[in-house]
Amino acid sequence: MFNTLGNLLSLTTFGESHGAAYGGIINNFPAGLKVDFEKIQYELDRRKPGQSAIVTQRKESDTVQFLSGIFEGKTTGTPIGFMIENENQKSKDYDHIANSYRPSHADFTYDQKFGIRDYRGGGKSSARETINWVVAGALAKQLLSDIEINAYVSSVGEIFCVKPYQDLDFSKTESNEVRCPDAETAEKMISKIKEIKKEGNTIGGTITCVIKNVPVGIGEPVFSKLQAELAKAMLNINACKGFEYGSGFCGAKMTGSEHNDEFNTDFSTKSNLSGGIQGGISNGMDIYFRVAFKPVATILRPQNSVDKDGNAVTVEGKGRHDPCVVPRAVPVVESLAAFVLADLFLINKTRNTNQF
Amino acid sequence: MFNTLGNLLSLTTFGESHGAAYGGIINNFPAGLKVDFEKIQYELDRRKPGQSAIVTQRKESDTVQFLSGIFEGKTTGTPIGFMIENENQKSKDYDHIANSYRPSHADFTYDQKFGIRDYRGGGKSSARETINWVVAGALAKQLLSDIEINAYVSSVGEIFCVKPYQDLDFSKTESNEVRCPDAETAEKMISKIKEIKKEGNTIGGTITCVIKNVPVGIGEPVFSKLQAELAKAMLNINACKGFEYGSGFCGAKMTGSEHNDEFNTDFSTKSNLSGGIQGGISNGMDIYFRVAFKPVATILRPQNSVDKDGNAVTVEGKGRHDPCVVPRAVPVVESLAAFVLADLFLINKTRNTNQF
Amino acid sequence: MFNTLGNLLSLTTFGESHGAAYGGIINNFPAGLKVDFEKIQYELDRRKPGQSAIVTQRKESDTVQFLSGIFEGKTTGTPIGFMIENENQKSKDYDHIANSYRPSHADFTYDQKFGIRDYRGGGKSSARETINWVVAGALAKQLLSDIEINAYVSSVGEIFCVKPYQDLDFSKTESNEVRCPDAETAEKMISKIKEIKKEGNTIGGTITCVIKNVPVGIGEPVFSKLQAELAKAMLNINACKGFEYGSGFCGAKMTGSEHNDEFNTDFSTKSNLSGGIQGGISNGMDIYFRVAFKPVATILRPQNSVDKDGNAVTVEGKGRHDPCVVPRAVPVVESLAAFVLADLFLINKTRNTNQF
Amino acid sequence: MFNTLGNLLSLTTFGESHGAAYGGIINNFPAGLKVDFEKIQYELDRRKPGQSAIVTQRKESDTVQFLSGIFEGKTTGTPIGFMIENENQKSKDYDHIANSYRPSHADFTYDQKFGIRDYRGGGKSSARETINWVVAGALAKQLLSDIEINAYVSSVGEIFCVKPYQDLDFSKTESNEVRCPDAETAEKMISKIKEIKKEGNTIGGTITCVIKNVPVGIGEPVFSKLQAELAKAMLNINACKGFEYGSGFCGAKMTGSEHNDEFNTDFSTKSNLSGGIQGGISNGMDIYFRVAFKPVATILRPQNSVDKDGNAVTVEGKGRHDPCVVPRAVPVVESLAAFVLADLFLINKTRNTNQF
Repeated sequence: MFNTLGNLLSLTTFGESHGAAYGGIINNFPAGLKVDFEKIQYELDRRKPGQSAIVTQRKESDTVQFLSGIFEGKTTGTPIGFMIENENQKSKDYDHIANSYRPSHADFTYDQKFGIRDYRGGGKSSARETINWVVAGALAKQLLSDIEINAYVSSVGEIFCVKPYQDLDFSKTESNEVRCPDAETAEKMISKIKEIKKEGNTIGGTITCVIKNVPVGIGEPVFSKLQAELAKAMLNINACKGFEYGSGFCGAKMTGSEHNDEFNTDFSTKSNLSGGIQGGISNGMDIYFRVAFKPVATILRPQNSVDKDGNAVTVEGKGRHDPCVVPRAVPVVESLAAFVLADLFLINKTRNTNQF
Repeated sequence: MFNTLGNLLSLTTFGESHGAAYGGIINNFPAGLKVDFEKIQYELDRRKPGQSAIVTQRKESDTVQFLSGIFEGKTTGTPIGFMIENENQKSKDYDHIANSYRPSHADFTYDQKFGIRDYRGGGKSSARETINWVVAGALAKQLLSDIEINAYVSSVGEIFCVKPYQDLDFSKTESNEVRCPDAETAEKMISKIKEIKKEGNTIGGTITCVIKNVPVGIGEPVFSKLQAELAKAMLNINACKGFEYGSGFCGAKMTGSEHNDEFNTDFSTKSNLSGGIQGGISNGMDIYFRVAFKPVATILRPQNSVDKDGNAVTVEGKGRHDPCVVPRAVPVVESLAAFVLADLFLINKTRNTNQF
Repeated sequence: MFNTLGNLLSLTTFGESHGAAYGGIINNFPAGLKVDFEKIQYELDRRKPGQSAIVTQRKESDTVQFLSGIFEGKTTGTPIGFMIENENQKSKDYDHIANSYRPSHADFTYDQKFGIRDYRGGGKSSARETINWVVAGALAKQLLSDIEINAYVSSVGEIFCVKPYQDLDFSKTESNEVRCPDAETAEKMISKIKEIKKEGNTIGGTITCVIKNVPVGIGEPVFSKLQAELAKAMLNINACKGFEYGSGFCGAKMTGSEHNDEFNTDFSTKSNLSGGIQGGISNGMDIYFRVAFKPVATILRPQNSVDKDGNAVTVEGKGRHDPCVVPRAVPVVESLAAFVLADLFLINKTRNTNQF
Repeated sequence: MFNTLGNLLSLTTFGESHGAAYGGIINNFPAGLKVDFEKIQYELDRRKPGQSAIVTQRKESDTVQFLSGIFEGKTTGTPIGFMIENENQKSKDYDHIANSYRPSHADFTYDQKFGIRDYRGGGKSSARETINWVVAGALAKQLLSDIEINAYVSSVGEIFCVKPYQDLDFSKTESNEVRCPDAETAEKMISKIKEIKKEGNTIGGTITCVIKNVPVGIGEPVFSKLQAELAKAMLNINACKGFEYGSGFCGAKMTGSEHNDEFNTDFSTKSNLSGGIQGGISNGMDIYFRVAFKPVATILRPQNSVDKDGNAVTVEGKGRHDPCVVPRAVPVVESLAAFVLADLFLINKTRNTNQF
């Protein structure tokens, strides 16, 4: 159903930025998996605010509580309910926008659509919602234990990590605040972000994600092709403006003779410009895609705007905000990729009588 | 459900390239719309093969028959079943690939996933499936009569239409074979495609789509944001490798002060780098997005490949194929956009008690 | 999605009684099943009109054409589109009700809901829709080859088949027009129906269905329990007024000590008053349920009614109608049971990591 | 999606009987409703254990906390997350069945399906899950403020309330422990239950539900007819064995001339044997249906059973259990009816362009 992530394995969530808690329910997670709770908390810690100088300073422990669906450390197959309480809301920071619309935020559209909005911290439109996706994705990752999902920051503003991913050492991604595994580029990125932060400004970036060891056959043409489900998941992330996989927008510039991905006799392909997916189904090669994020909308400068009655106002960002969201979005991208894959992986168990 | 397009208004389809017919069922189309059948056939004619020198020469009338759900010219609210018969299959053209895997096609993945595939014409993986989407989208367009959806070819290979869309006259889009409203660029594109075709090669391109007069409030955060539903639909199109909306990948290079989309006192926004969507919901400004297509995989040259038993083979394209698919994909992009919008437009009627 | 039968394996249908055709699309049927087309046509023949003196005399060949999803006799895993053309519509028989509302029919409610209805033959509300369910159920039966599904007429009016199902020989069900395997009761039922028919009247009845060899574990608590999915399917059949399984309404009169279904050491149960389902999941014992059908609403006598403008009118049934619908509903009940089971059977393949 | 209640308005739940908490997420509840929290708690109090001598003595406050989706007392249109903590688990009462299968419970089937179960209190299979449905239904009731939904106990064992519902005063339903509005019958029922309880036994019963003031047009043929959605919801209730609406199983004994529901000139119908639904759509007349419940499976007597290794064992109920569940099921039936109606009511806003 819409407003749920996933088709068979599914995630339904709730939560507002300054509400009591976030949480969700994971339905149809298979029974019998021994859950590694530390790994889940680790992913949450990667995402959480207040962890470095280049992200928001909101302090939350982001501790997840599992309320059902796990018994004596194993999944039972019944719905997994979880919750993360909000601890460090500073709602006063948002009083000024109770009746005004911040540029490039969802204030105006929520008011128009619903006639009411919890304005504090952006309410439902806050990116804090992604905390729920990390819990679900962390569990999904454990189901797909052979699959390796590695995302990293591939650009910040006009600073690009130019090395192809095959030349990167993903074990280095967590070694710096900006989550770029190329140390040299990471340094430039961090400088830039600090500079931007001092100016009270924000900056955009991109994340590249590489998925290895995906079994062949995952994806459901015609309307749930693997790349389409990934695209939908990513374009649901706050601030995401674009998605491309394999050769992406570059492929649009190429000819067939340049682009075609010839088979070797072991069924691997030569160039993998396909990006590991053909006809909407994984072919066993690395899946790689790139996601674009616009700069965070809240900047600490006055901006021209309007209030709900149509009067011109000035809006200035208060509170604690990220100068650049992409480092924190890395575990979010991985989590969504894991969940999408797990869902289609499970569905794939039902598609061929030869497996019965 | 997965393998359906849409959430409330939904399209389920069937058909293989060399099977008896394509067709589909549109569920939950509201009752009472007077159907303009000519407009539907017009959209199908825009998409169909054999219409110009720069597309495939397969001859199909692509005439749609409606089998239910329309009575005395009006929709009844009951399921609309439709069918388009295949007339001009040349299955012999595909005998050679019954057991071989064509590069960058879905032959290998379908065989792996299903253990069986209708190889003729690519079977289910053929882009002829999009004919169904055009029927559904054409009906959806009629439901959204105030909304204007215009797509056009914005690049072919390295030839770009550099004018911003605001400077283009969409009434010119149909005036040339490549569907680029800028006559000068169109000429270059057509030359290029003809050159490519002579070489027995293919070339990629991009399509830009602009949607005007969208009412505010369309889109369902958190998992069915308007941009995400559009992205999923587009990434399901054969050969699509990427999607971006508003500032897209360029936005990732910008700062917040450059990118933020300030409000005017009439609630319109200044730059519309948002692309008409904020917080996943339409804000009344033009929605614009760009879709990337890799070159068509079938080229009329020998390529190295493998057969199902792992033996090296040579595969050479036979049959009738497009040198460049983007002109024919223009009505497909518009149709999908129309259907996604119509679905979310209908859902939006249920989201606010003020409207009851 | 709603208006679809099934959750993973799904059926979407179209068709109106006097429209061009009925048909449907079966999504996510697994690949690799060798289809027995004769068995499918056999089930359709069991359901079709005009086959005996005690059912409607409308003559249709009810021949199904498969348009996709089956290649060289095997399912491909891609959507299976099928169609059955209407041949013998006598629309003139319905002119008189274009503007009037027949008692106990859907004329009034369709007009109110949709503002428009195809009145001919009842349009979408006609039970001819069930022809689609028989096609889908017949295919589902072939997927569940070990499972035996046998339905039979257990009552017509006040004539009951009093033997418990365990004492019946299901191979006798097809040996008489009323599909009651107890010859003596069948004779009384047939007499009654012929008497009713002569009077231009109709009569209700019930169908009992017994399903043997169901593997343990089928059903998805909490909202898709096996009995609930069966109940929903059955209550969607035209004229169905009730559903009970296992001890049913009788169980409501019993005490726990009388009703409890003790286990034997081989995990079978003693009484099976449970009806083969516990906690919403099959337990391996026979599943048995009973479905109630009201008398067909069209009777060949004048009835008081109203037209769309609120004027009192007299309505008299014309055309060809069943005096008793339950014999023809027997294959419909079996088909729905098969489809529901197949859907939950497939889902069950994803619910336990021990099976992976 | 399966394992969710509802199609557009949807409820997803979690919780095990002796786990930390129950809870759920209501998706797509429209924005702008002023929530009456007292009414919700009132419905929960009607359902909760420990409230009278004829129900279980487990003590829970059953207080619901809303965690999102409601702001300044009004629904925001965003997901409504809620939670009810478990306070009074006595898990020791269940140690003895950790490895044994209680008759007529879900112990065996859960073990078979999932390979693991939280056995304490029946885990997910406990009827305590219905607490979640009451929260959701109570909110749904507030959305449908004109509609009156009244359920009552119509039989306990062989004691029947013989008065037709039209002769009952529903305001009396809450005036006695057994929730039967006919005082005389109520007295007999209470006596019977007390007697049964003393014997350590349990007894079944039925509930009748009457819904007034339903607008015309609610229900979605062909697969989501109103009666089918109600049937599915009810058959998901623990211990439910049957559902009938309108004339129900009695209608199966009637002839068409007896059963047909003639129209008056104001479009009301004379007999309403239809039960307020025709062609799967509400017709404005009272909707009435009856639900059958088998006796609660846990009885305080030794029963023969088996353990997971196939050894014969004796199982004796410990803990606190209901001798008769139907009084507590009354608010559950009303809640489910409310939710199903609200869902279809919202969907109906999208089905007819005349309303746009």
